[in-house]
Amino acid sequence: MNPVKDSVHDYIPLDPVAAELIDTPVFQRLRHIKQLSTVRLVYPSANHTRFEHSLGVYRLTSRALDTLEVDEDRSRHARAAALLHDVGHGPYGHQTEDLIRRHTGTDHDDIEWLVTDADREVSQVLEGHDLEPERIAALVRGDGPLGDLISGELDADRMDYLVRDAHHTGVPYGTIDHGRLVRELTLRDGRLVLAEGNVPTAESLLLARGLMNAIVYRHHVSRIAGAMLERASERLLHADDEPAADVDVETFRRMADHDLLVRLREAAPDLARRLERRDLFKRAVWAERSRVPAGTSEVDRAGERAAAREIADEAGVDPEEVIVDIPPRPTLKESNATVVVDGTPQRLEDASELVSGLRGAQRANWRLGVYCPAPHRESVADAAEQVLELRPGRP
Amino acid sequence: MNPVKDSVHDYIPLDPVAAELIDTPVFQRLRHIKQLSTVRLVYPSANHTRFEHSLGVYRLTSRALDTLEVDEDRSRHARAAALLHDVGHGPYGHQTEDLIRRHTGTDHDDIEWLVTDADREVSQVLEGHDLEPERIAALVRGDGPLGDLISGELDADRMDYLVRDAHHTGVPYGTIDHGRLVRELTLRDGRLVLAEGNVPTAESLLLARGLMNAIVYRHHVSRIAGAMLERASERLLHADDEPAADVDVETFRRMADHDLLVRLREAAPDLARRLERRDLFKRAVWAERSRVPAGTSEVDRAGERAAAREIADEAGVDPEEVIVDIPPRPTLKESNATVVVDGTPQRLEDASELVSGLRGAQRANWRLGVYCPAPHRESVADAAEQVLELRPGRP
Amino acid sequence: MNPVKDSVHDYIPLDPVAAELIDTPVFQRLRHIKQLSTVRLVYPSANHTRFEHSLGVYRLTSRALDTLEVDEDRSRHARAAALLHDVGHGPYGHQTEDLIRRHTGTDHDDIEWLVTDADREVSQVLEGHDLEPERIAALVRGDGPLGDLISGELDADRMDYLVRDAHHTGVPYGTIDHGRLVRELTLRDGRLVLAEGNVPTAESLLLARGLMNAIVYRHHVSRIAGAMLERASERLLHADDEPAADVDVETFRRMADHDLLVRLREAAPDLARRLERRDLFKRAVWAERSRVPAGTSEVDRAGERAAAREIADEAGVDPEEVIVDIPPRPTLKESNATVVVDGTPQRLEDASELVSGLRGAQRANWRLGVYCPAPHRESVADAAEQVLELRPGRP
Amino acid sequence: MNPVKDSVHDYIPLDPVAAELIDTPVFQRLRHIKQLSTVRLVYPSANHTRFEHSLGVYRLTSRALDTLEVDEDRSRHARAAALLHDVGHGPYGHQTEDLIRRHTGTDHDDIEWLVTDADREVSQVLEGHDLEPERIAALVRGDGPLGDLISGELDADRMDYLVRDAHHTGVPYGTIDHGRLVRELTLRDGRLVLAEGNVPTAESLLLARGLMNAIVYRHHVSRIAGAMLERASERLLHADDEPAADVDVETFRRMADHDLLVRLREAAPDLARRLERRDLFKRAVWAERSRVPAGTSEVDRAGERAAAREIADEAGVDPEEVIVDIPPRPTLKESNATVVVDGTPQRLEDASELVSGLRGAQRANWRLGVYCPAPHRESVADAAEQVLELRPGRP
Repeated sequence: MNPVKDSVHDYIPLDPVAAELIDTPVFQRLRHIKQLSTVRLVYPSANHTRFEHSLGVYRLTSRALDTLEVDEDRSRHARAAALLHDVGHGPYGHQTEDLIRRHTGTDHDDIEWLVTDADREVSQVLEGHDLEPERIAALVRGDGPLGDLISGELDADRMDYLVRDAHHTGVPYGTIDHGRLVRELTLRDGRLVLAEGNVPTAESLLLARGLMNAIVYRHHVSRIAGAMLERASERLLHADDEPAADVDVETFRRMADHDLLVRLREAAPDLARRLERRDLFKRAVWAERSRVPAGTSEVDRAGERAAAREIADEAGVDPEEVIVDIPPRPTLKESNATVVVDGTPQRLEDASELVSGLRGAQRANWRLGVYCPAPHRESVADAAEQVLELRPGRP
Repeated sequence: MNPVKDSVHDYIPLDPVAAELIDTPVFQRLRHIKQLSTVRLVYPSANHTRFEHSLGVYRLTSRALDTLEVDEDRSRHARAAALLHDVGHGPYGHQTEDLIRRHTGTDHDDIEWLVTDADREVSQVLEGHDLEPERIAALVRGDGPLGDLISGELDADRMDYLVRDAHHTGVPYGTIDHGRLVRELTLRDGRLVLAEGNVPTAESLLLARGLMNAIVYRHHVSRIAGAMLERASERLLHADDEPAADVDVETFRRMADHDLLVRLREAAPDLARRLERRDLFKRAVWAERSRVPAGTSEVDRAGERAAAREIADEAGVDPEEVIVDIPPRPTLKESNATVVVDGTPQRLEDASELVSGLRGAQRANWRLGVYCPAPHRESVADAAEQVLELRPGRP
Repeated sequence: MNPVKDSVHDYIPLDPVAAELIDTPVFQRLRHIKQLSTVRLVYPSANHTRFEHSLGVYRLTSRALDTLEVDEDRSRHARAAALLHDVGHGPYGHQTEDLIRRHTGTDHDDIEWLVTDADREVSQVLEGHDLEPERIAALVRGDGPLGDLISGELDADRMDYLVRDAHHTGVPYGTIDHGRLVRELTLRDGRLVLAEGNVPTAESLLLARGLMNAIVYRHHVSRIAGAMLERASERLLHADDEPAADVDVETFRRMADHDLLVRLREAAPDLARRLERRDLFKRAVWAERSRVPAGTSEVDRAGERAAAREIADEAGVDPEEVIVDIPPRPTLKESNATVVVDGTPQRLEDASELVSGLRGAQRANWRLGVYCPAPHRESVADAAEQVLELRPGRP
Repeated sequence: MNPVKDSVHDYIPLDPVAAELIDTPVFQRLRHIKQLSTVRLVYPSANHTRFEHSLGVYRLTSRALDTLEVDEDRSRHARAAALLHDVGHGPYGHQTEDLIRRHTGTDHDDIEWLVTDADREVSQVLEGHDLEPERIAALVRGDGPLGDLISGELDADRMDYLVRDAHHTGVPYGTIDHGRLVRELTLRDGRLVLAEGNVPTAESLLLARGLMNAIVYRHHVSRIAGAMLERASERLLHADDEPAADVDVETFRRMADHDLLVRLREAAPDLARRLERRDLFKRAVWAERSRVPAGTSEVDRAGERAAAREIADEAGVDPEEVIVDIPPRPTLKESNATVVVDGTPQRLEDASELVSGLRGAQRANWRLGVYCPAPHRESVADAAEQVLELRPGRP
């Protein structure tokens, strides 16, 4: 098996399990799921997929396992888990995750259904190489110290995506030193930690994600398009009035991006057309934290839909043309990373004064959005201020 | 209008015409047409699109026009032409070009039908800015000295795609010095030429394309997938036996990649499934020039199809499972570029001893391919040797 | 005049003044002064010079001036100041700056003596192009809004050096988005500010410098070598016992790196040999802030020397073999940068919660060092704990 | 031992022998020898040194040895040879090689004198690790199949320098795919060859060097400065009339760049000043092959000096102000590389039609130069045409 040439990690050699897993339909589907979903509408070069990202995570995990000197059985399971960690994503990745969760109760990192029975190809490959699908599913969920490497505060997942997203958007902030991160990981008391002298290394990971969040991942254009996509997907799954378009959630979550895009044309023709042509809704409201009452900032998707209907009603526009987008409080998962300082493992939060500053910056970047077609901006803005009980902004 | 961030050229500022053209559906469609079509099945990072490439060509053209000190009216037409130069591509770009040509008689660089009547959005933008659609279509065809800049031996098109394809595949050979190329272009006696001292600059362009051809563009996996895609597309356009799936060529050529992929599932289910899952045909024959009789090497698509049917018949396999792929003789368009040497414009062919060497190397890389599912390789190979009258290879 | 090819900014076009200034001996000397002085002993690729850095600052300043639409007379002065901003550096740049200041009372950004009388070549070029040397010296000192661009919180100097140092060390953290920074600068009420929406842009500059400080600029090996170089240079300037080696400060400050290295062989043979062969002193003490009494942390160079002599005496080693290195409190000059938020200019310090976190991180990275040859580490450490009244560290 | 961070290969791990060799004065001296000597006067970012290059060659050699599965004893010798391959260079590398050869009869790749007796530090390290200095010297000379890897047609030396020189000059043409080259090397019948399918890989190496030759390595400004440096160095070694400045060749060849630069100030003050200030001689003659009689094109250094004196005499200028520079015929060492084609090893020359083209291009780029201070250009040109019997050029 030839190594795969990757634009980020150069040649990626494949072990025999990886070579077979890659050929399964479940994995090949990742070629058709973009890593950054709607971000490409802002950064047009960002067309990279979860296929190449998964290969990258496999590569970094393999290198970390070599450094950690993990035994071969555990390494083989961890490498397979690294490769498969994203196969549970629905079309457009995180953009449909909430919707799938509401229908199935499972997240993208629950892949047990995929690697055990449901898709015999994957489980057959694993079993053919004496690998246990359940252990791999557990690693993808983040169980145990090697689970930390797949899905934890210092995981190979974010090391790959930050660098890859920087390469493909052209925004340099994600360019972390993954060579050093991978080399400085160590196992200590059953936990994955960064060795002595690496507080700045850990901080760099945190800062890279913070800046990429502000400038790339949470860009308002991407958020608007993402919210429109989710709204359209909801229609596809619940299209009571257009029964022919109905799709069950098991079919939905196995779609690739292009399947969804084509199906949305029937289920939500206006939104689908707008998404394909980048003729997006605009911001009627873009409110920072201080303007939003506590009750409002904690509503769930149902609450958002209810508010949107109320705003539409108040503004006299079609309810399908108002979207309320209230993101959760920002988290800083990396702040729980463990770093050895003067011989003692510490949480990064305690070892670095930067963490609280970064938390504050993330809070400051938080915005509640209300989106609608450009012509309705003013009326929707007025209605939204009222319905969401927003406080006045700075003059 | 904010500049667009590009992973290759960093920020690309847009003039008012460009800002409006980009928002037309004809241009937004380019977001959904991959620059390297089936190459991504070999180089998984190569998911970049003709959208970002078109912005890159616009950028390089703008910079060249500044250097050339062309007047504003001609510059504005040339910049618009640079931006629009690829809107005539069908789904999967060059991969369907031959098929569209056979049905319509036009190539991708004939965009007159698109920028004049057919799609009112584009012509309205152009006319609204006092630009003449016919002049822009002529520039895209390569007429005149500025047409050379859009579609000629030293055009901004190849300067962009070589660097962009290198960035996204990870194969470094396309990394030319476009800064120097753009700066050293000059107009002389109504032709676009490279200024004195730039024979190596011109050679570098030629060599970059030569190496990218050998290692990327003509990779056998990409050629196999491309041939399968063309075969499946033929079925979509001529699906006599499945009339419901039929599509007329005008609809076909306006499809994006994902439209085609989804439509092929009905028109050619087996090929479509194989393409989506990268479960491709294999090489039964891969014959170099010296093995192929002159008559065989010059057949057209109809000839390829006839040969494939004959081979299938001989080998006792389904005719849909044999593909014959006979590429045209390689050309070296850049060898006609003009370079000033000791004060006199010369064809690169005459100024550089490298050109003939490169021509030989291209000839040596030429291969005739016959493809089929893996289990039939042997029987198809035997039949093909006979039907195509191939000479024996080196022992 | 051909543009200069630079590894960071590609081609840098030169205006006529720049083309002449570059040919003066004062500017050519910068070819022989390394940008990162002793950092190359840790990061061996970091051999770049103040020559290319000065061209980079010239380039970024030129681009910012275009955006700012400054009139031609002020632009020409600012461009010349950008190019000349580092000609006042002594050999090994910042490493000898304190020593030169103690002897002359002037810093590297005081270049009036150089561009007015002292070196007729520079002033002749300036006057020949109707530029006023005094205005240029004032810009280099940071006077006025355009002085902010040369030497201020958001200056082109740090935009260039962060990216350049990243390119040459291989440490990615300095890779800021200078294209965006330059484009988003604007003049407002006579000050240089970042336009609305650029809090994260400004933060990125701060964070890049913070990480580069921790990982590159303040690396202990570079600090040790720097302190040894300063000690040796002191001997060269005050070599009372070896009068033949004596050098006056005016000659000293005009030396290039290689001049100094060769001269130190006579003035301080052991230190010079150690520097050339990278046979450096080691850390006897490396104490964080909490271990250092307030009085100790504020001593000046004379205090450091006195403490070193006392420690040597106590430990019974040659006073030339003990170096005490107490860096000043870290500053965050960028925190005074002005960013427009909701239409109002604010200090970055007030607009960003990250600033205080970063300040804390810088404090946490501060270290007092005592260095000596490896065999004396233990005895020097004991003596230093006592003389400097260090508190015990974590157990 | 921590790995070393390199701007080209990222982290380079060091084995115990390498860690000790690096600390010897013989190796540390390479920090002070620039890889591209006078090229930095054209490409100001090209300040990288033979120190980092040697680490890069060590890295690529280590990776190739892993692929080749060479036994540990031979690998250890080969890795040490890779690291030490350039320690035999004099100051300014190739620029003084001819001069040293004339005085000592040895080239830079003869390091036996250095690694056996002469410098005990190196031989002690080697012997302390059971390595044989003579075997290492033989590998550096290119003996045997692993010698091919250190100094052969496909050696790690050129793989590193092409990529490194591209990174530091900013000229992209050297950016070869060293990952693939290293991976595709194989041993066959006691020779190092490239595996099947790698004719384009080998061609890329050849083309990269061809373009870098034309655009970087043989740039006329670098050639002029190099010739001036050699002339000044000759004076240093033969300074009969200034006996105090005299230096013996054994001291000379161990100098670093900065030693030489400082010493030249006494031995050849005018040339030294011109080199430091980049106030270089200009081309009086720049003649292509067709203008130069066979006898003239084959003279040695003594012949060049004699011709220069004759020209100076004829033109009435100081003989120290005329330099004649007649480069040897270009060679294409890589054309002897062996590549497997259809199962049979072939010389690249026979397998690739590009080689002869490239040879022609190199011939076309060959130039004879005569250099002198700008004011004498015309008189020196006239005299040189006569003395060197140049044929008239194109009108």
